[in-house]
Formats: sequence, structure tokens, C-alpha cells
Amino acid sequence: MATALISEMATNARAASRVLAGMTSPRKADAVLAMAQAIRRHATAILAANATDLAQAAQSGLSEAMLDRLALDGQRIETMAAGVEAVASLRDPVGMIIDETIRPNGLHMARIRIPVGVIGIIYESRPNVTADTAALCVKSGNAVILRGGSEAAASNAAIHEAVVAGLVTAGAPEKAVQRVVTTDRAAVGAMLAAQGQIDLIIPRGGKGLTSRVEAESRVPVLAHLDGICHIYIHASADPDMAAAISVNAKMRRTSVCGAAETLLIDADFPAAPVIAAMIDAGCEVRGDANIAKLDPRVVPARDADWGTEFVGPVCSARTVAGIEDAMAHIAHYGSGHTDAILTQDQSAADRFLASVDSAIVMHNASTQFADGGEFGLGAEIGIATGRLHARGPVALEGLTTYKWIVRGNGQIRP
Amino acid sequence: MATALISEMATNARAASRVLAGMTSPRKADAVLAMAQAIRRHATAILAANATDLAQAAQSGLSEAMLDRLALDGQRIETMAAGVEAVASLRDPVGMIIDETIRPNGLHMARIRIPVGVIGIIYESRPNVTADTAALCVKSGNAVILRGGSEAAASNAAIHEAVVAGLVTAGAPEKAVQRVVTTDRAAVGAMLAAQGQIDLIIPRGGKGLTSRVEAESRVPVLAHLDGICHIYIHASADPDMAAAISVNAKMRRTSVCGAAETLLIDADFPAAPVIAAMIDAGCEVRGDANIAKLDPRVVPARDADWGTEFVGPVCSARTVAGIEDAMAHIAHYGSGHTDAILTQDQSAADRFLASVDSAIVMHNASTQFADGGEFGLGAEIGIATGRLHARGPVALEGLTTYKWIVRGNGQIRP
Repeated sequence: MATALISEMATNARAASRVLAGMTSPRKADAVLAMAQAIRRHATAILAANATDLAQAAQSGLSEAMLDRLALDGQRIETMAAGVEAVASLRDPVGMIIDETIRPNGLHMARIRIPVGVIGIIYESRPNVTADTAALCVKSGNAVILRGGSEAAASNAAIHEAVVAGLVTAGAPEKAVQRVVTTDRAAVGAMLAAQGQIDLIIPRGGKGLTSRVEAESRVPVLAHLDGICHIYIHASADPDMAAAISVNAKMRRTSVCGAAETLLIDADFPAAPVIAAMIDAGCEVRGDANIAKLDPRVVPARDADWGTEFVGPVCSARTVAGIEDAMAHIAHYGSGHTDAILTQDQSAADRFLASVDSAIVMHNASTQFADGGEFGLGAEIGIATGRLHARGPVALEGLTTYKWIVRGNGQIRP
Repeated sequence: MATALISEMATNARAASRVLAGMTSPRKADAVLAMAQAIRRHATAILAANATDLAQAAQSGLSEAMLDRLALDGQRIETMAAGVEAVASLRDPVGMIIDETIRPNGLHMARIRIPVGVIGIIYESRPNVTADTAALCVKSGNAVILRGGSEAAASNAAIHEAVVAGLVTAGAPEKAVQRVVTTDRAAVGAMLAAQGQIDLIIPRGGKGLTSRVEAESRVPVLAHLDGICHIYIHASADPDMAAAISVNAKMRRTSVCGAAETLLIDADFPAAPVIAAMIDAGCEVRGDANIAKLDPRVVPARDADWGTEFVGPVCSARTVAGIEDAMAHIAHYGSGHTDAILTQDQSAADRFLASVDSAIVMHNASTQFADGGEFGLGAEIGIATGRLHARGPVALEGLTTYKWIVRGNGQIRP
């Protein structure tokens, strides 16, 4: 039954995607603006639905953090609508010419950006994902099938209703944004099995969700399972900058995937002030024997502390013998998300940036910048650590592909 | 056992890929040139190995066509070596800056092309694939694991030995090109299961191989299962051009994936000369009732003739009521490979090129041009009909991905 449901939704999505692919950039922008306006217009209904979800969630004993993620108020709805509006004004990648050439036989070859087609979003908790991802998909000419968590079912339904009302107002196909109504977990399995019907799956949620999607999906996935980000403090790093960036990279927000988990510190670097600054900022530092000597508050690190995403005010810290040692540690324990070197030595920086095999590599900057908005993409549908299609922060361009357009005047191949 | 073998090879490949990723373009080109020279130097050994394969194949009753694909001679070895040399001189995409920007906070963001990493090639029959794919992978900084068919085992082993000798001569890592020695089919399964160890699988062979790879692989795949290419002859097509392109698109080589399978002909177009030209050129035309009236030699088409890749001198031909009807037929029966419109009406051409959702769309040109060499890519590792990463002819750029390089001077995120 779940398979038949998803198959029918995907067929409708494909038809809608063909209409979207033919819409001009201004028409797509108008549709997204109409979605934002409809979200504002539907605010009362969305808040009522959210109250239902919150009451249900409180009864079922959801944690405070989860309740906070779920909760909406007038301000959050306005933020959601404003976020959708911001997407409307982003530059549309569809129709862009990637490259073109004229062959000796006169054939004109061009690669043109087109939408991917049908996107599946599987997400948890935050109802704003319903609006954000719908806006990004429609703006890039893609149809989307949304599958949110059961804990936010009423909120997601109300937001989805607003989004569809906006699409209809703007004359865009209402099946451009569909929501899987059933909370049956088999629907997720059916989405993951829909090879050829859904073109791309993007999970938005915790590690449990992402690992299930990555393990099961027959549809290509854009995701990151872990964000095990490293800060390597080179011997020639500026000590004040090293302390400031380390504290920011971990403590600005400890729950984001770009939060640093491990400090790798050259044996020759005067590390005590950095360690003290981390601990003074409220971070538990789990250090190796050398680090432990620097501050009595350091907790001894165990093997499991390398390669752990702490998702909280905890970090590990290790002394390294130099850049090669640091890069070997990152290659072994990293997750290919974001890794930074702090140094005043340009050649060390260049070596690190060239050799570390992560989606994002940084020099003298906080790993917390790993975010589509900060990268100038205007938004973000996720961060990908896979190696193909799109890496790092993914926004509109990552939701497009290309086709080859060949123009001739009668050429036949000899 | 197969899993352990592939895992060990993939670990070695990863290490080699890190070395390759750090090699300059001239050094990679030198390594590929050394491979070509070694192939020439090893010609006698390669021919002896090929004789063994041919004797074995003749005994096991391989078809003439298969024997021809398998057979090498001095000329074919020279062609193979020259093909490898041609790859050496291609422009290296690695290190190219895709785009860059400076953010208001001073962070410099750049996307830089890097190699994908570890490529798996699974192929059949043609021993030249061993040399061609090794050259493309090394030139683009990737390590490759080659798994050829058992019928060409001795030939592939001898060519692989030459390739490795070339790598060693040039000081490149010998594990950059590894060959799966066992002919155990479980080794293919282990490659397809090596998610995270092999980054990309490219099958090169018949439909049986490709469909197995697409159905089973946990590793991303670049491939095309079918090449069901259409020629739509619009009412305003030039009649002589229509006949010339139709005959070329089908008959130049009927076995290639870019060969046309179906002619869709506007009811208003004078189709008789095109049908006659096809039949005169030796093509069996299976037509609908309207087409059958045009020439007594037309065979009645059955339902199965739409959406069939004939791989021989046969095509189907159907009358359509106009461009919408033609595009609906292609959407239903096509394989997203290559589809062409023939017309003198620019607006009809633009509509077709924009709306038909295939990797390659053409106007007034033969579908037989669907080839990396003809597209100016210098070579081709395959043609992909999937929607992500790379579409159409895939060459060096399709074997690369990118990373984000962020350069700062102490920025922390507010």
C-alpha cells in the first residue's frame, strides 16, 4: 500500500515537475512569494495545528529540546515566511549555460542547467523544514514529496496546506509540493525504494534517520551522517586567533554539524591559553597526556573520544607531531565535513587545504561557518559529505543537473 | 573472501588516490604517456595473451561478433596506445576553480575541482577498455579497480601489466591501476557493495551487466541501461536532410547506443522518401498503418516495437499529430539518452530542446554524434542517463568532484 501511494505521488510529482521545468524564473519566484504570503495568511490555522502537536508531544514525553524544535509562535511563523521570501529572490540556476562550444563540423554543443526533477525530503521535528524545502525545490523547478515526522504531523499538514494555497494562487501546479499524509514508517521505505521515480532523497534530521536513509536507499542521497570537524592548530598559529576560533568553532552552537569536535595541536604551539579559554567558556576538554599537563581541569581522553560528534559542550584535544600527523588523524577519524588549519604559515595552509579530503577545508576561520547562508548561497537544503554531484552546503544549484543541447544544420556522422 | 579482496584493493586504491590527487598535471600526463609506451613495448606479450583468450573463446563457442571484439592485432594495439597518448594531452580538470567569491566578512570561498577518488570499472569483452579507462582515471587523478570479463582475462592481465610498468617508470603509484584477478562473480558483488570504499562504479558492457550493476550497487553508478533514441521529423523538416539524417542515425553503426530506434513523423510531412531511403539502405522499417501505406516493404509494427533497442538494422516508425504527440511518445518510451528533432522551424526546435527530458537533445543532427569524442571531450568513459553528477558523454570532468576552500584571517561566526 505504501508503495502504491508513493508511486502515485511520484507520478503526479513527475507531471508537475515537467510544468515547473517550463516555468520562467519570474513565474517561479512569484509562486514562492505566494507561498510566503499564504503562510502568513494561514498563521492562525498553523498555530492551532502546532498546539495540537505540542499537546500530543508533551503527553508522549518528548524532551524539552525536541519540544522547542517543534514549537511555533507568531515570530517563528514570520521568520518562516520571510525565509521563503528570501528564496524567491535567489538567482535561479535553471537555464544557465555551463559551457558551450562549436565543433569543427559546425555542431553547436551547450550544457544547460535543468532541474533534477522529483526530490524526496524525509525530516523530523522542525516544521519549518516543510516551508524551507518546498521553497527551494519550487524555486529550482523541482517537484517535492515531503515526509515529516509524526510528532509534527498537524503542523506540517497546516503549513503544507498554506504552501499549496500559495501555489494555486500563483497558477503553479499544486502537485509541485506533496505531503505524505500517512505516518506509517513503510512510506519512508517506499520512498527509498522509488528508484527512477524519485530522483534524489535528502534526509533532514538526526543520525538515526540519516543512517537508515544511507543504508537503505536505492535513490541517490545527499546527506551528511556525521560532522566530525577538526581544528588543527599549527606551530605558527597566532595564539589569540587560535583561542578565539577554537572557542567559537566549538561553543557558538554546540549542536550544529559544523561544530568542532577535536583540536589537534602542534607540540611546538603554546597550547595552555587555548585549553584554558575552552574550559573557561564552559567546554569539557578531553585531552591526551600532553594536553592534560596544561590545565588541571582537562579530563583524560579515551580512544572513543576521537571521531565522536559530542553534540554538546565537550571536545577532545590531542598533541600532534606536525602537519602530516594532523592530516593522518583527520583522514582516519574525520567525516569529510569541515576541517580547518590555523596558521600564519601560508605554505602549511596551502598544503592542508590541498591535501585534506573533506567537503570543506578552511584556513584561519571557524568551522561554524559551514552553512549555505554563510557561503553566499542564500539558503541551504543540507550539507553533503558524499563525493558526487554536490558537496558541502547544498542550495539551488545542487538541486539542478544539466542536459546537452546540440544544434546542427544537417550534420551526419561520417 | 571476495569482500576481503576488494576491501584490501580499495584500501590500496585510496592510498594511491591520495598520491595521485597531489600530482601535478604534467606528472599525470607523463604517467599516462609512459603507460602508452609500455603498451607498445609489451605488444608481443599482449598478443600472446590475446591468442590464449581467443583459443579459449573459440572452444567455448563465443559468437563471431564477440570474437571480433576480443581480438587484438598489431594495429589494434597501436590504436590502443595512441588512444592512451591522446588522453595524456587532454586538459586536466583537477585544480580548476569552478567559482569563487569574497563574503562581506572577508572570507574567500572557492570551489575547486578534485578527483572523485576510487573508481570501479566492470566491463566485458573489449580488452582496450583496460587501457582506455586506466588512462582516463590516472589523468584525472583517480585510482581505478578494473574488473574485466573472464573471456578476456589473459589479454587484460597483459595490458594491465604494461600499464603498471608504465606507472612505475613514471614514478606514479603502481596501485593507481589495480586489476581484480579472480574471475569469481562474487568479486563483482563485493565491488557493488563497497559503499564508502569505492566512490563510483562505471559498467562497460551489455544490458545484462548494466542492469545487474544498477539493481545491486550500493556505490553510485554512472551508466546508461538503454539507448532508445528517437528522431522526430517535424512537418517543416527539410525532406532531403530528414532522409540523410534518419539513415545515418540508424545505419551508420546499428550497434551503438546512439543509434536511432524510432522515427516519429508528423502526419503533414511527406514521409515516403524517408521510409524508402531507410529500406534502400538495408533497414527493416516496422511502421504503423499510415507508414505502411507509404511503401509495400514496411513491416507492420507491434506494440513491442516502441521502446525497443533493436541493436541491428531495424527501426520502428510512427505517425504523430504534432510536436506534443511526439514529445509524449518520447517521454513514455524513451530512455533519456539522445533524442533529435528535424525541422526548419526554429520555435519548434526550441520547444523540443527545452522540453524533452533527455541527457542529449539535438536539432538537425544525427543521434550517432552521441559520443564524447564528437562532443569535444577528447574521450569518453561512458554515457550516463542518470540525472545526477554527470549526464550524457562522461570524460575527465565527470571523474572529478569539488571541494570548498575557505580562506580567512581569523573570522569567527557571530
